[in-house]
Amino acid sequence: MDYNAAFEAAVNAVRAEGRYRVFANLKRHAGQFPRATWIREDGKEQDVTVWCSNDYLGQGQNPVVMQAMHEAIDAVGSGSGGTRNISGTTFYHNQLEAELADLHHKQAALVFTSGYVANEATLTTLYKILPGLIIFSDELNHASMIQGIRNGRGERYVFRHNDLDHLEELLKAAPADAPKLIAFESVYSMDGDISNVRGTVALAKQYGALTYIDEVHAVGLYGERGAGVAERDGIMGEIDIIEGTLGKAFGMMGGYIAGTSAMVDAIRLWASGFIFTTSLPPAVMAGAAASVKYLKEHNEKRIAHQERAQSLLKKLRAVGIATFPTESHIVPVLVGNAKHCKMVSDMLLNDFGIYVQPINYPTVPKGTERLRFTPSPDHTDEMIDHLVASMDKLWTMCNVARLPAVA
Amino acid sequence: MDYNAAFEAAVNAVRAEGRYRVFANLKRHAGQFPRATWIREDGKEQDVTVWCSNDYLGQGQNPVVMQAMHEAIDAVGSGSGGTRNISGTTFYHNQLEAELADLHHKQAALVFTSGYVANEATLTTLYKILPGLIIFSDELNHASMIQGIRNGRGERYVFRHNDLDHLEELLKAAPADAPKLIAFESVYSMDGDISNVRGTVALAKQYGALTYIDEVHAVGLYGERGAGVAERDGIMGEIDIIEGTLGKAFGMMGGYIAGTSAMVDAIRLWASGFIFTTSLPPAVMAGAAASVKYLKEHNEKRIAHQERAQSLLKKLRAVGIATFPTESHIVPVLVGNAKHCKMVSDMLLNDFGIYVQPINYPTVPKGTERLRFTPSPDHTDEMIDHLVASMDKLWTMCNVARLPAVA
Ligand SMILES: Cc1ncc(COP(=O)(O)O)c(C=O)c1O
Ligand SMILES: Cc1ncc(COP(=O)(O)O)c(C=O)c1O
Repeated sequence: MDYNAAFEAAVNAVRAEGRYRVFANLKRHAGQFPRATWIREDGKEQDVTVWCSNDYLGQGQNPVVMQAMHEAIDAVGSGSGGTRNISGTTFYHNQLEAELADLHHKQAALVFTSGYVANEATLTTLYKILPGLIIFSDELNHASMIQGIRNGRGERYVFRHNDLDHLEELLKAAPADAPKLIAFESVYSMDGDISNVRGTVALAKQYGALTYIDEVHAVGLYGERGAGVAERDGIMGEIDIIEGTLGKAFGMMGGYIAGTSAMVDAIRLWASGFIFTTSLPPAVMAGAAASVKYLKEHNEKRIAHQERAQSLLKKLRAVGIATFPTESHIVPVLVGNAKHCKMVSDMLLNDFGIYVQPINYPTVPKGTERLRFTPSPDHTDEMIDHLVASMDKLWTMCNVARLPAVA
Repeated sequence: MDYNAAFEAAVNAVRAEGRYRVFANLKRHAGQFPRATWIREDGKEQDVTVWCSNDYLGQGQNPVVMQAMHEAIDAVGSGSGGTRNISGTTFYHNQLEAELADLHHKQAALVFTSGYVANEATLTTLYKILPGLIIFSDELNHASMIQGIRNGRGERYVFRHNDLDHLEELLKAAPADAPKLIAFESVYSMDGDISNVRGTVALAKQYGALTYIDEVHAVGLYGERGAGVAERDGIMGEIDIIEGTLGKAFGMMGGYIAGTSAMVDAIRLWASGFIFTTSLPPAVMAGAAASVKYLKEHNEKRIAHQERAQSLLKKLRAVGIATFPTESHIVPVLVGNAKHCKMVSDMLLNDFGIYVQPINYPTVPKGTERLRFTPSPDHTDEMIDHLVASMDKLWTMCNVARLPAVA
């Protein structure tokens, strides 16, 4: 068996579809975000504006966050040295978990090494803790939720995206006394649409189901204190399990769940993906806690953020560029073909100094390849105008069909 | 359905077995490891010596590592702001991957958010890339490998721990032309024994199987440059896939694989657990790269480390305390009962200022509960003598059977 030939074949299959991924080698500069240096494959450097970061508010360069990290390193060093159970729980982990429980007004929170692991480990483990559990999952849920649900190997039903009628149909058909859980997101990050949280909770109550919401692209960004869409919609208290990340708006890394003490304690004791892994470094926990605390108190960042997104959206539409019907801070533009998507983004990068990664399969379904722009409060009018003018030029050059311009 | 009662029941089931986990709240002090402050549940502080850290060499407080982190934070900020593909690949990620490929003399390396995720994602994905793959897995493999193999849902066989005859039996019984992979560890971290790497590789060659070795508890610690047991045994070049962590001897966080460019590229393009998650913070990558580089050049740390482990082992055996037949730097002492194990470790902590976490199920099989000591180069003779005297006292007090003392 020629294994290396098999590995090469797997790579070539991806290449043939035009979706071979070349990771842009970036160097950010604290204080200058969203400006950065792109290190080309030939080693040359080029200044670019980053238009696809999930550091949505630029917290990655907030001096408060950086300072908290510095202090933790000086005080306690680099890594934690162990799993949470075996010497890897520090003051900083406990402090962050308290901060997160407070953010969501829940009894407790539990930090995982990432949002991916939080979803995967929690959903898998819920099948173990609640025998006979049936999970109802939105069809566009993130890969980490899908993995967790699949790996749990219990009964599961997928409902059409944001389709509460379909969800109700499925709930109604299930045995009334079976434990149930509805898994969904608030902001769907590739389309930018937002789910009906209140409607989902109402169905959950009616059919005796738990609610599990992934607010990964909403924490820090929505609600008076940045607890997410459920906070904004005044329904947070009715959600059973909130899952979030520290790696996007909070500008750090790690993931978490929040809920009742009993739920959190059960997951803490039962989840393999939580137990058998080195805990996050104290400096990361300290930075995250500082960021959460900061964003609780700075709603003006969220207001500025939404304004920037609206501004970009309006200007793109004014030149007839087809954006998705987004309801959030995410501005996706349809391209619809992997090779084309990569080509357009390469031209934006090389010729215009605009860095926006092509979003291809498996991140989005084939045929819906797109450019996904994420304006932050630090993206200036000038940057927006430059982006829109560049896109306009490219769209003409490449003869892309447009919508009628919207004023 | 009363969900909270179900969660409470899950917690109580664990409690009833005496293996409810209370995480010790620790505060390390950079420069003073293994001394640390333990924050008791009543808020009082107590000085302790940490005896169960996996920061085996104290790299968590190496100024070289801390300095690299500080510099990266000042240069580029806190988080990476994206997945590896979407704006989250930095100069620091590439630099670390080059450093790791060089460490293992492989063509390429790929960093994951943790060693857990590296194992889980890689093994699951290999089933997809190599259709019909059969995995042969040591029965004591780590939870993360077990999860990866289970979630891949392909054919798999478990061989008795370190039993090459059994492994050969299973290999022989499998179709000669099927793709095969042998998954094993070098240092088994709960028992401290070391596998027969050379013998395993020989079998793999004979039966046309790939080898996948988890060197999580060996990287940084064995071999002239700290590449692990395979390096020490002069067989590293024959191993197909080496998996390691940055969270133990390297004192940081994250995991990786190393192997051929084609293999690494295939995993990079296909593995959900690699693709759909925020990449590690630049400061963590910078700290890890500095640590790997440092330990390549400081073999004397490894020599001191082994000497400390031998010294503790000898002194424990001299008073007749039953250690496992360890061949590594890990010194486990059998207790054999979850409640007892917790009690002994509580006494060590409260009365003697010795922090060693009880190791209970699910980390080890029931009936083999143990105390697991991990002396570092920074554990002094005095600390070792204090530990042995304290254990001696406790063993007498609790009337634990002893072996005849060994000089
Ligand atoms: C909806 C959603 N959930 C979870 C995750 C995983 O979070 P993390 O990046 O912290 O692993 C992501 C993205 O990475 C996501 O988009
Ligand atoms: C043998 C083994 N493999 C993998 C892991 C996971 O590594 P990490 O802590 O980096 O997730 C561990 C421990 O955590 C381990 O003991």
